[in-house]
Formats: sequence, C-alpha cells, structure tokens
Amino acid sequence: MKLVLTPGMGIGPEVTARALSQMRELPSFTVMGDGAQIRAAMHDAGVSFVERDDVCECPGVCIVDTSGRDVPAPVAAIAQAARACIDGHADAMVTGPIHKAKLIDQGFNYMGHTDMLGSICGEDPVMAFVGGAVRVALVTTHIALSEVRDAITEEGVRHTIRTAHRALVNDLGLARPRLALCGLNPHAGESGQLGDCEGAILTPVVEALRRENIDVRGPISAETAFMEAVRGGFDMVIAMYHDQGLVPLKALSFGESVNWTIGLPIVRTSVDHGTADDLVGTGLADPSSMTAAIRLAMEIVDG
Amino acid sequence: MKLVLTPGMGIGPEVTARALSQMRELPSFTVMGDGAQIRAAMHDAGVSFVERDDVCECPGVCIVDTSGRDVPAPVAAIAQAARACIDGHADAMVTGPIHKAKLIDQGFNYMGHTDMLGSICGEDPVMAFVGGAVRVALVTTHIALSEVRDAITEEGVRHTIRTAHRALVNDLGLARPRLALCGLNPHAGESGQLGDCEGAILTPVVEALRRENIDVRGPISAETAFMEAVRGGFDMVIAMYHDQGLVPLKALSFGESVNWTIGLPIVRTSVDHGTADDLVGTGLADPSSMTAAIRLAMEIVDG
Repeated sequence: MKLVLTPGMGIGPEVTARALSQMRELPSFTVMGDGAQIRAAMHDAGVSFVERDDVCECPGVCIVDTSGRDVPAPVAAIAQAARACIDGHADAMVTGPIHKAKLIDQGFNYMGHTDMLGSICGEDPVMAFVGGAVRVALVTTHIALSEVRDAITEEGVRHTIRTAHRALVNDLGLARPRLALCGLNPHAGESGQLGDCEGAILTPVVEALRRENIDVRGPISAETAFMEAVRGGFDMVIAMYHDQGLVPLKALSFGESVNWTIGLPIVRTSVDHGTADDLVGTGLADPSSMTAAIRLAMEIVDG
Repeated sequence: MKLVLTPGMGIGPEVTARALSQMRELPSFTVMGDGAQIRAAMHDAGVSFVERDDVCECPGVCIVDTSGRDVPAPVAAIAQAARACIDGHADAMVTGPIHKAKLIDQGFNYMGHTDMLGSICGEDPVMAFVGGAVRVALVTTHIALSEVRDAITEEGVRHTIRTAHRALVNDLGLARPRLALCGLNPHAGESGQLGDCEGAILTPVVEALRRENIDVRGPISAETAFMEAVRGGFDMVIAMYHDQGLVPLKALSFGESVNWTIGLPIVRTSVDHGTADDLVGTGLADPSSMTAAIRLAMEIVDG
C-alpha cells in the first residue's frame, strides 16, 4: 500500500510526525510539503526518513520537498499528491490542515482542499465525516445559516445521497448502506408546520431514490437520525447544513473525527481541525485526528 | 418535598408509573391528569396510591383526577399543578408529553407546555435541556430554519443568557456559571466571512454581559462549544436554534435528557420526548427521560 500525506501548515507537520511515530507498522508513506518543516517535525518525533522527488515505493517514510515552486509548498504538495493518486502511483492521500486566509494572499483561489481536489479531478465532491461509528455527509457546507434554505435543491440533495451511497458501497464495502436524510427544520418540519423544505424537496427526492433501490429514510428529525446512528441504526446521516451534521459528530467523537471527501475518483481523508497556530511547537497538538485519517484511508484502500 | 407530576398523554402515564415504581424512596408525589389512564398505569406498574382533590402532603403517590372539567384532563392538570407551585403547595412540577395537535382541536391555544406556563406565570421563560453533564438553553425554538436569523435579536440573546445564568446560580447553586454562546453560522461566522450575526448582535451582547460579571464566552463555533462542554469546560451552552442545541445534546445523552424550563418563578422539568402513540401499551416505552426529569426536579428543590 502506498499513501501520500500532505501535512499542510501550522500544527500539520508535527501531528503528522507524531501520528507516524505511533504507528506499529508503516506501509509506504510519502510525505509532501515544506521540506524544512517536515524534516524538523520528523526529527522531533524520532521518525527516520529518506528523501525523494516523487512518490516512493519503499516501506517507511519518504519526504518530497515541494517548496521553491511557483505556488506555496503546501499547495504544490496537494496538487502533486492528487496527481499521484489519479495516475495510480499512490493509493490514497491524507491531508493535514491549511490556513486558507494566508494562502489566499499567495494566489490560492479555492474554498479549501475539497474544492481544489474537485477542480483537479473534474468532479463535484461531497464533504463527509467519520467519527467513531457515526458518519455524516453534508448537503451544504460553508455558507451563512440564512442562505441554507435557498441553497438546498432537489439536485443537490440527490447528488449528496447518491454519492454517499456509492462511497459506502465502493469504498467501505457495505452491501446495502442505510442512509438517514435529516429534515432541514426542527422535527423535520412537523408535517409542514415549521417550513416547506421537507415536503417540497426532500420527500420527493427520497421517494425517487428509494425506487432506485437506495435505502434512504427521511426526512426525519436530525435528533432522531443521530440518536439512531449512534446505536448503529444508520450507516450514514445526510445533514442539510454544517452545524446540523458536524456539531453532534464532533461532540460524539471527542476530536477523533475524520474529514472524508467522497465522490472523487481518488481516495482522500483529512484531519478535521485547523492549523491551530497558537499550539505550534508547544507539544500540545493532538495527533488523534491525523491518526484516524490515516487509518480510514488504509481501511478504504484495503477494501 | 412535595412534587406534582402531570403524566400527559400517550406513553406519559405508563412511563410515569414505571419511573415511580423504580424509585428507591418516594417523597410526596401528586400525579394529576386523566384518572382512569393514570390508575390503570399505576396498577400495571404495581405502584400503590391514594386519591385526593389536590396536592397531597403524605409520602408516596396520590392521584388527582382532572377529567370532566371544561378543558381536557391533561391541560387541566398542567394548570392545577402550576397553580399549586405558585401558591407554595408544591415545590416543583414534572410533566410528561402532550399531543399538541390533538389538544388544539379541543381549544388548546399554546405552542406547548413552556408557552402555557409562561402565560400562567406572566413571565417569558427559556427552554433549556440537561443531558448528562451537558446543559443547553435555546435562543429560538420551534421555527423554520429560514426564520432563525431574523428571530435573533440583542434583546432575545441577552434575555436567554441572563436567564441561564440566574437559573444556574439560583436553582443549581453554581457560584459562577461558565456559559458558552454559540455563533449562528458555521465556525461562528469565520470573522464575518459567513454571516453578520456574530459581529452585529452576539459580540456586543457578550461584551455587555461580561461587564455585568456574567462569565459568558463567545460567540464560538457550536462544535467547539459542545466539545468543551462534554469535557466539563462549560456549565451551559447557549444555542441559537433548535437543532444546533438539541441534536448534539440528545445524541450525547442517549434518551436521558430532560427539558428544563428556566426563567419561571416555579420549578418545572419535563421529559424530552413526545407521546409516541404507537408505543402505548406495548411495554416498550422507555421511562429514562421521566426518571431523569424527576431527579433533576428533586435536585433543584434540594438546592
């Protein structure tokens, strides 16, 4: 198995090095990004490595320094890692955090990793998250709450559900994934008393997809969806917006949740945290999410 | 200690009877509502009782039959129980679920218990919930998601925070409660990139209340607020809307959460579930939330 890892910025290099130092057996890990930062982090964590120009085949850790190019090293690393996966030189990519605002000043014009990878692959990916036994996919992501209702379309909901279904079948090997579609409104709209989205958009999509033999239930209240998912009743919850999905997921998984981009022709998992610049070098940054992201990528590749 | 309990409708009487049957020591419990249903449930659960016309002083269970009046028995029970608390004949009231749609046909014109009790007491109560170690208060409650932004006002946020602070000090005896105010938008608006509510409304309210010596932090992302609350970092999370607060709370508390009405001159706790009419008589209804509601009421009364 060959994994590519882009540690990103801030605490990314140190949580990467610490996560790798704690792994019992290492497949081939190519770590791409700012060479100086990554080398220092590996030294601090006691991880030995070799240096190469591109994805390495040998077991253990190999570093590819992507600095000194026409884009910042963390961005060049993402592009090279994605290319390696597309070309079949690597099986999956795992990413650390990037600091979007800092990169925008240097010409980065994507919403984030997911958007950039969608552009490179020519696909419309979906943001999903895995935290313990609970998995979530989001219909809308980083928009103001007041814009959520208008951003929800039949097409978007259908795309999210189909992408989730396909990822669970193809990547995690589930024969017949059980999906829960959350209502947009409290109590899934309480039969139309609290909003029209459920009746106007969600119910018709669910009915159509069930006829395609996708096992999706809903719209049900998000409370019920997550309570049942915690007990193992659903393989994935489809949440309508950011906080509806991520607040319960993160509260339940105690910082060990993983961002999983589904709907791409390549496998990509990521930490679910930011660059936490105030923690850099303090030794306080927690590698749990990076460890979980690496494990999920390995699980998907292993089939 | 004298408690009044209104079991309400649907599974209310049976979860009440089962909760009482499992309690080691019973203070004085007056159970008010539809006498026939309550008697049958007590018989089934093996709980002995006496019958009275109003709150009873003796230890154990006493039933007050509120049927045959000009309003449905469950509604008459709520009114009589509230009156008993206001007049000092009872220390707290605990309520089971009511089926609003069915009661509206019979002339009930409140949004629910909380609204009715606010009207009886002449106060503007706040809906709060307790689930394990996590407590939540809601700035807005049962409205469509698209209406949430416009429903958030400086006055409403200030009222919710002050009410939460006062309840934690007066009812739970916390010397200096630590409150977290969630942002409305993902990542608390990401410095204004994802919505204006945080800068326009929430930050000014937090700054003003901190000058009043209320320990409220925020607006912070709801993910962070709940992750820290789970670890004991906050005594209460102030959520901006229904699903932001209740989805994580219920997922974390596995059906044992309690609805706690704060900001009333009386103590009122409640189950957090509905009437679940399909479970009535099956023996499958779970009394955990009723047990938790009774325990919280006793904890508050005990001081």
